[in-house]
Amino acid sequence: MTDTISLSLDAVHALALRVLTHHGLSAAHAQAIARIIVAGERDECHSHGVFRLLMCTRSLRDGKVSCHAEPRVTDRSAAVVAVDAQYGFSQLAFEIGSQHLVEKARRNGIAALAINNCFHFSALWPEVESLAEQGLAALALTPSHAWVAPAGGSRPVFGTNPMAFSWPRPGGQPYVFDFATSAVARGEIELYRRSGRAIPPGWGIDAAGAATTDPATVLQHGAMLTFGGYKGSALSTMIELLAGPLIGDLTSIESKALDGDAGGTPCHGELILAFDPAFFSQGDAQADQARAEQLFQSITDQGARLPSQRRFEARARSLARGVQIPRALHEDVLALLR
Amino acid sequence: MTDTISLSLDAVHALALRVLTHHGLSAAHAQAIARIIVAGERDECHSHGVFRLLMCTRSLRDGKVSCHAEPRVTDRSAAVVAVDAQYGFSQLAFEIGSQHLVEKARRNGIAALAINNCFHFSALWPEVESLAEQGLAALALTPSHAWVAPAGGSRPVFGTNPMAFSWPRPGGQPYVFDFATSAVARGEIELYRRSGRAIPPGWGIDAAGAATTDPATVLQHGAMLTFGGYKGSALSTMIELLAGPLIGDLTSIESKALDGDAGGTPCHGELILAFDPAFFSQGDAQADQARAEQLFQSITDQGARLPSQRRFEARARSLARGVQIPRALHEDVLALLR
Repeated sequence: MTDTISLSLDAVHALALRVLTHHGLSAAHAQAIARIIVAGERDECHSHGVFRLLMCTRSLRDGKVSCHAEPRVTDRSAAVVAVDAQYGFSQLAFEIGSQHLVEKARRNGIAALAINNCFHFSALWPEVESLAEQGLAALALTPSHAWVAPAGGSRPVFGTNPMAFSWPRPGGQPYVFDFATSAVARGEIELYRRSGRAIPPGWGIDAAGAATTDPATVLQHGAMLTFGGYKGSALSTMIELLAGPLIGDLTSIESKALDGDAGGTPCHGELILAFDPAFFSQGDAQADQARAEQLFQSITDQGARLPSQRRFEARARSLARGVQIPRALHEDVLALLR
Repeated sequence: MTDTISLSLDAVHALALRVLTHHGLSAAHAQAIARIIVAGERDECHSHGVFRLLMCTRSLRDGKVSCHAEPRVTDRSAAVVAVDAQYGFSQLAFEIGSQHLVEKARRNGIAALAINNCFHFSALWPEVESLAEQGLAALALTPSHAWVAPAGGSRPVFGTNPMAFSWPRPGGQPYVFDFATSAVARGEIELYRRSGRAIPPGWGIDAAGAATTDPATVLQHGAMLTFGGYKGSALSTMIELLAGPLIGDLTSIESKALDGDAGGTPCHGELILAFDPAFFSQGDAQADQARAEQLFQSITDQGARLPSQRRFEARARSLARGVQIPRALHEDVLALLR
């Protein structure tokens, strides 16, 4: 008996759907989340794949997340659409809101989608990728829970505050990046703690603001650090402001307070910007597109990699041969159905 | 005789105007640039103050920059305005375009200003600050000349690609950052070269992509590095795309090729986004503003500094007492009038 089992992507989707509906999620929400879980597993982002079902169902059991929330769309202007997720998971709100976002971006060149009151646990790349598939460049920003200290400080203020960006490319994978503005993901530090290893310098500080390589200190009493020193800290501040106060939603400090340190899925807002290169182009759109391709080529020609390449390679494998799930994880997930 | 001379801000403005018009710049351009030079000197950003007149007049003597270019505004949509700078300096194009940008952002919540075909040599903070003074949050992006290698590469692709962001604050200085996505400014490495010092690790690489601390190697045969490793590299790519191909303008590689390695002022585009918090706010705009203030306070309360504080402190000094200019620099500038 091997310690993994093989599943087709359809089987992953069906499994996710069964688990989510079994835990009371409406069909629309379950479909939206199942799609995102398939995408995570397919791209071998394992923490965003089948594994997420464990977290997701825990959030549902906690009763904070609305299982039947119907996202409410407000057409704010020619360039802004807002979706109140009504304390449901964010995926369905994004799927509904992004249709309006795409339409507005195509008509006006740029548009913004503000999602409010959503429980957010997925990566941002599926969102910006879906916009790139529709020919748009996109930028997505969201706070999380306050775990990260500002440069020069000692106490947590920022979330891991990810930003994701995509640029559509003809006949291939889009250019996509999605990174946390913290030096590393919180889960990474957790893995070091579990295995009793010291973390590399630059990841976190103790309660006095001094550098430490002890993961437990960082997680319990100290704070994580941003990537890139004061520049990363500034970037994280920008994300707090644009995906928080700008859209009338919570900062990472407020989101963590709301959670009451229960360690639940953060509830806050998200801002997604979309840009239509075909609209912006004032002359020859194909020449502008070729200009972008030249940029990518000047990167790859020298042996440097574009972001997300590992994901795209994993995707090709998974589309051809399905995915391998650890048997223990599969059993844990099946147990959620009992 | 001291080695500096004291000038009022009005005197700096008058001096800049005289020099710029003496070198053939139209009154409108000279006024716009004089304002930006006063702002740089006032905030003790010396490389963007009076010193810039030396570079600026050199560009004018080279004959590449149009002295009388009249920026052409095109109203592209409810949310996009484009300004063709017609190969003049960027300041006037920004001043003219930003009026439309502000109006569009107030009406629709978000708006974009694309500036094309401009010679760009100023910092971006005066632009985003001027938008914050009008109650808007703003993000400005521009490429430069290809001097910076992508993460994992060895050859220059990116410019120093700055990004600046501002957030309006009631009754005080706005929140503002403006940083290069390169590890440091190119001029900083130049200073190390001149004084024969080794640069710190992480600033640059040699032609084979290996780390080096020799500034001449980085400047002549190698490449600068971005801040923040692959994340900074991704951010710099985003800036190339949004402020280049998206708006139908040059990448940093193309801008450098156009310059023919003459070391002139880069000619390319710029993208400025503006967001109106008053528009976005769906409920209580004051509460949202208070939320942002709380974020700033949670940073400063722990002794961490907000970006631009040093500039604001210098500004207060300069507004009260004028500025000190090195006597030698002052004489070099006066010599430009002969």
